[in-house]
Amino acid sequence: MLTAHTIKILQSLDKKKFRQKYNLFLVEGNKIINELPESNFKVKEIFSTDPQKLDRKDIPVIQITENELKKISFLKTPKDSVAVCYLPEEEKKEDQNVQLVLDGIQDPGNLGTMIRLADWFGIEQIICSEDTVDFYNPKVIQATMGSFTRVNIVYTDLVEYLSKTENMNIGTDMEGENIYTFERPEKINLILGNEGNGMRPETEKLLQKCITIPRFGKSQSTESLNVSMAAGIILGQLFSESKFQ
Amino acid sequence: MLTAHTIKILQSLDKKKFRQKYNLFLVEGNKIINELPESNFKVKEIFSTDPQKLDRKDIPVIQITENELKKISFLKTPKDSVAVCYLPEEEKKEDQNVQLVLDGIQDPGNLGTMIRLADWFGIEQIICSEDTVDFYNPKVIQATMGSFTRVNIVYTDLVEYLSKTENMNIGTDMEGENIYTFERPEKINLILGNEGNGMRPETEKLLQKCITIPRFGKSQSTESLNVSMAAGIILGQLFSESKFQ
Repeated sequence: MLTAHTIKILQSLDKKKFRQKYNLFLVEGNKIINELPESNFKVKEIFSTDPQKLDRKDIPVIQITENELKKISFLKTPKDSVAVCYLPEEEKKEDQNVQLVLDGIQDPGNLGTMIRLADWFGIEQIICSEDTVDFYNPKVIQATMGSFTRVNIVYTDLVEYLSKTENMNIGTDMEGENIYTFERPEKINLILGNEGNGMRPETEKLLQKCITIPRFGKSQSTESLNVSMAAGIILGQLFSESKFQ
Repeated sequence: MLTAHTIKILQSLDKKKFRQKYNLFLVEGNKIINELPESNFKVKEIFSTDPQKLDRKDIPVIQITENELKKISFLKTPKDSVAVCYLPEEEKKEDQNVQLVLDGIQDPGNLGTMIRLADWFGIEQIICSEDTVDFYNPKVIQATMGSFTRVNIVYTDLVEYLSKTENMNIGTDMEGENIYTFERPEKINLILGNEGNGMRPETEKLLQKCITIPRFGKSQSTESLNVSMAAGIILGQLFSESKFQ
């Protein structure tokens, strides 16, 4: 049973302001919820249409109706359960050998896809500019398919961070070095810019190298690949190098 | 000025049944519309809030209001113009050295992304099973960002096609050969299956080889990469080979 008050709070959690006010965010669907016990994320309570399917004795699992689920879910097709989780303290790990650095990514689907990519390639940390879309946004969380539990994401002043890091700051640019011949340095920050405007000039100044995915098609179009697809193809190539080290 | 009758016809074009009935489909936005003259697509007429921006003397360009545009656009944020195009005759080209073969892809965004990828890598033909999402679906057309004008897409009986092709039929599978060590044959059909269920058993029987993108992360999750991301990473790798041939 859900009170009107609880429904109102949960519904507000699609906005960063309210996630911070209540210190909470939502994770939907048993499949992802079942990955939480192995992560650092603490669950406050779970609302489920079928509590038997969730093997959690340590936290309250509250039975709700399909109709109640519809009210609190942010999905077009609500799944079985909604877990209410505490926002953890953000803590930067030391620089990892390969990191993604995001300068103003706005689309929740792109951030989610890049978290999933990071998880696939074993990249443990993503550094985001402060204006990058919030990763506790329900659309980001769902797009990661659970990968957010295994990748550390920090928001920081990129200019400050990139000035101090010992990783090589590498951007993407049509005029950059061909990814197929580029020699991979040991410690990399792969920097990806905003969907429409690319990276900011302040960020660009801190790049040590630019790389590009060569275009094989005949098209003269100025259209580039979507930013998360470009990230995937570049990571695929960077890891093919590491494979043979 | 748009008549109620025209509005009704245009609005029906998000359904394949009506696209086929009227033999028409829509392309939105000047940027993509301006790529049509260099393609084989014939435009019937263009409705635009700013006809001066379109340099087309050969076809009717009809001025409409923002409000009328909203009525005929399938976009959340309608752009400047909507071109009404004739559905062309589908014609299979001879087999190309690298082709994508799609077995039951359902998501318009995934098909659009793969058409854009094909265009980037200069892949001139995509072969689709008859139940793959229709590529004249407005969401597919928009997701391709104009790339649909440069890639030939045919719908056919895949079992029949894959039994006869001289390209090597290559699928993806967690147990497949590592893409980083896999030796690329000269003529390839890269076959990608449905988002939820993978490829059909009938299609799987016709594979000559399977490849896989190794996972570097520690995750034990059974979650795989999204199908269009997997296609991008694999193509990135296949073309790195061809680069050095």
